[in-house]
Amino acid sequence: MNAFNDLQRVMNTAADLGAAASVLGWDQETYMPDGAVQGRADQMGTLSTIIHETMTGARATEIAERVRVEMGSYPEREQRISRVFLRDHDLSRKLPAEHVEDMARTAAMAQDAWKRARAASDFTIFQPLLQHIVDLKRRESELLGPSEHPYDVHLDQFEPGLTVAGLTPVFDELRRGTVELIKAIEPRQHAVSDDVLYRTYPASHQQDVATSIISKLGFDLSIGRVDLSAHPFCTNFGNRDVRLTTRIRPNDLRSCLFGLIHEAGHGMYEQGIADDLNRTSAGGGASMGIHESQSLFWENVVARSEEFWSWALPILRERFPEQLADQTARSFYCAINTMRPSLNRVESDELTYNLHIILRFEIERDLIAGKLSVSDIPEVWNEKMRSSLGVVPPNDAEGCLQDVHWSFGGIGYFPSYTLGKLYAAMEWNAMQEAISGVREQIANGRFDEILSWLRTNIHSYGRTELPDEIIRRVTGRPLTAKDFLDYVGAKARDVYGI
Amino acid sequence: MNAFNDLQRVMNTAADLGAAASVLGWDQETYMPDGAVQGRADQMGTLSTIIHETMTGARATEIAERVRVEMGSYPEREQRISRVFLRDHDLSRKLPAEHVEDMARTAAMAQDAWKRARAASDFTIFQPLLQHIVDLKRRESELLGPSEHPYDVHLDQFEPGLTVAGLTPVFDELRRGTVELIKAIEPRQHAVSDDVLYRTYPASHQQDVATSIISKLGFDLSIGRVDLSAHPFCTNFGNRDVRLTTRIRPNDLRSCLFGLIHEAGHGMYEQGIADDLNRTSAGGGASMGIHESQSLFWENVVARSEEFWSWALPILRERFPEQLADQTARSFYCAINTMRPSLNRVESDELTYNLHIILRFEIERDLIAGKLSVSDIPEVWNEKMRSSLGVVPPNDAEGCLQDVHWSFGGIGYFPSYTLGKLYAAMEWNAMQEAISGVREQIANGRFDEILSWLRTNIHSYGRTELPDEIIRRVTGRPLTAKDFLDYVGAKARDVYGI
Repeated sequence: MNAFNDLQRVMNTAADLGAAASVLGWDQETYMPDGAVQGRADQMGTLSTIIHETMTGARATEIAERVRVEMGSYPEREQRISRVFLRDHDLSRKLPAEHVEDMARTAAMAQDAWKRARAASDFTIFQPLLQHIVDLKRRESELLGPSEHPYDVHLDQFEPGLTVAGLTPVFDELRRGTVELIKAIEPRQHAVSDDVLYRTYPASHQQDVATSIISKLGFDLSIGRVDLSAHPFCTNFGNRDVRLTTRIRPNDLRSCLFGLIHEAGHGMYEQGIADDLNRTSAGGGASMGIHESQSLFWENVVARSEEFWSWALPILRERFPEQLADQTARSFYCAINTMRPSLNRVESDELTYNLHIILRFEIERDLIAGKLSVSDIPEVWNEKMRSSLGVVPPNDAEGCLQDVHWSFGGIGYFPSYTLGKLYAAMEWNAMQEAISGVREQIANGRFDEILSWLRTNIHSYGRTELPDEIIRRVTGRPLTAKDFLDYVGAKARDVYGI
Repeated sequence: MNAFNDLQRVMNTAADLGAAASVLGWDQETYMPDGAVQGRADQMGTLSTIIHETMTGARATEIAERVRVEMGSYPEREQRISRVFLRDHDLSRKLPAEHVEDMARTAAMAQDAWKRARAASDFTIFQPLLQHIVDLKRRESELLGPSEHPYDVHLDQFEPGLTVAGLTPVFDELRRGTVELIKAIEPRQHAVSDDVLYRTYPASHQQDVATSIISKLGFDLSIGRVDLSAHPFCTNFGNRDVRLTTRIRPNDLRSCLFGLIHEAGHGMYEQGIADDLNRTSAGGGASMGIHESQSLFWENVVARSEEFWSWALPILRERFPEQLADQTARSFYCAINTMRPSLNRVESDELTYNLHIILRFEIERDLIAGKLSVSDIPEVWNEKMRSSLGVVPPNDAEGCLQDVHWSFGGIGYFPSYTLGKLYAAMEWNAMQEAISGVREQIANGRFDEILSWLRTNIHSYGRTELPDEIIRRVTGRPLTAKDFLDYVGAKARDVYGI
């Protein structure tokens, strides 16, 4: 009877309580009555306290020490699971309870202040709380360090193993290639119209057709479901209960359709995690970046391809015959692939999106390093927007106040979005070598082999490998911007005729 | 700093975890995908283990002992809350973990066996598991006793303070009065038609109008909501988040409308519990019987009165003009108050219902006392049906296999239903003395004074008083069948002209 059996019980308890907290979170965003907010906050607070105690208390610490001594003799699967637990355990132990509480309390206030600041377009309303968050995050660099760059520990929380030193050359290459493409497209902006996306599409039809499409992609509705919420998300309680949400805008076809395909990409990842990782620390996605690589693979690589629309346009047209009467797969494909610098990260396209991320990465890195003051953010933001995207926000609401992330302390999170794009392009190249005729399969509405490949090569592993290990195993290479630049460059040439 | 502060923290934790478990239970019955059953069972198991540990572990026991010593000096409110906690704590401590686990495991298997037995109408499929449940319950009589009658400890779990000795004369009186009324009605059965209830009523209209009516009764939808489920129920997570469910049968107007009014009666009780009892052991209803008195008060006393339908029929008719064209408040009132012996408890009427309960009470009492063998249940059931209701089930599916309760170990539960009816009639007499013109208020669709009276006299107390204390305070008298027999007799005379 080794310590792994005891560890299993600790992990099961923590996973079950985590799942319960996630059900409460899902309920809060979908069906909970407005008047129930305070009670729900109490319930969530109690659950997170007990989860923390389960993962880091005396019993867990005693088991962790025994596992650390013994694990060399475990079968490989148990070693890998133990490694993930120890990583979570050690990370949690390094952050004192007072620090975690201060962060939680500050985040609650900061989210409120951020909303008010954005509504008033007044950064100074948010500034003192953001300052406190940055101070806490700088303290975390000490608590979790030492590391080569103080921002590394924050990258590591979302993308285990990622460092400033590793990311900088990749982002440099990405920026150069992106800026070149934007310049090349600019004179051809008139060549593509996306009017079709903004016609009137009745809400219930939008949800029906989007749900039908994700089901055909492979999202399993017998172990998952779709509901409405203000902000779309994917959450799960083990691999057999995966919930997606969507929102519907009657005058914007993208929000529900592409939003739901995106969330279904996350959802299929969770549905594909191996059963034996359920209720262990190694259940769940490997990292935010790998998770985004799955959502973006389906949303962009698959569902923004011309092949996909040669199959899907007739399906969409059954529901919206008049709105789509003038469309061909080609015209629709062009409409959903316009590329144009804009102020808003969320609404930007595959190409220009990454410049929004690099800007945020640089600001976060410099804030944590103490090289940038919180008070200087608005000015630096606008200057970076001008120099990288060539557009300048008319106010802070449309500039440095546009994202919620900093208000909940999510510093280190943004790079994941771009990593997801880079990983997805690398995965796509590997898949094209592995599956002959994969583009034809998409054109024929056949996604089983694609999903099966993702399952076998990525999903089933859960957290048993680090992101870098996954990408090297799947593609034979470390993280690079090259595949993405080739992919998006080919698309830009195709769509804009450059 | 007395022990009550420590107790508050224990109660808060247990209440928050209990609320979380209830959210998971609600989700399971409403939206959870079918494939998620096993994971949900794991999560529920983990939560109940931690709740048990929170309520009965070393820390809780140490605090309980300090509270027991100190509580004489507490303010009355804190004394009452402490009393409820100690009651729960002591009860849980008396049942060894192995016993609780055996019961849970047996119940899970028994529910499955019961379903198969009912489908095959074969009691022998259920018999061995029911035997094990009865054995466990007889063991509980020893663990929780001593008591005057071994069944008392089971009554007490649903209706604190209730005993066989106290209940028997009340049930005897109730049976006599009921049998007399049934005999008197029998020759007049032809006088009332309830055809109107079984016309076609489209589902979405049914839900809309039922929801609108419960909102007018006083169920607060800003701290509550309505969803669909296979079996209607009310659940809550504190007093600010109360969930009702309903089911809709297009060819039966009763299921959704009266079902939802019934659940809203439970829901208004929970919404009316005093804020300071939230997150303590004294939050929640005083007993199953008092809870049923609230649901049945609204469903039967209010919503099956002629006054109510003089107000509500026009509202119902807006949605169902053709179906209700031939109805008057009088004819509709008669249709929803037919009284006729039948085989099925759930579908029976206000009058004959109680004979179904008395039959179950007698069987449970004798099983626990060892005076009746499990194998004899079908024969005894049929004999009691014949002698009390004058009808005999053609098979066990429609006889002793019709209820789910025994399969989950709910022995002692059934009497609550009839207690609810008796309490409701007693409350109604007290209310008529307290609120002048209360019948006219109902006829005018004014329910605020009624709800306010229930709030002040019953709801706000939560579990701080025992059921008997509540009923004596509110009515000045102990439990009796007299008020109910007067009430239902008056209705029978009115409807059937006897």
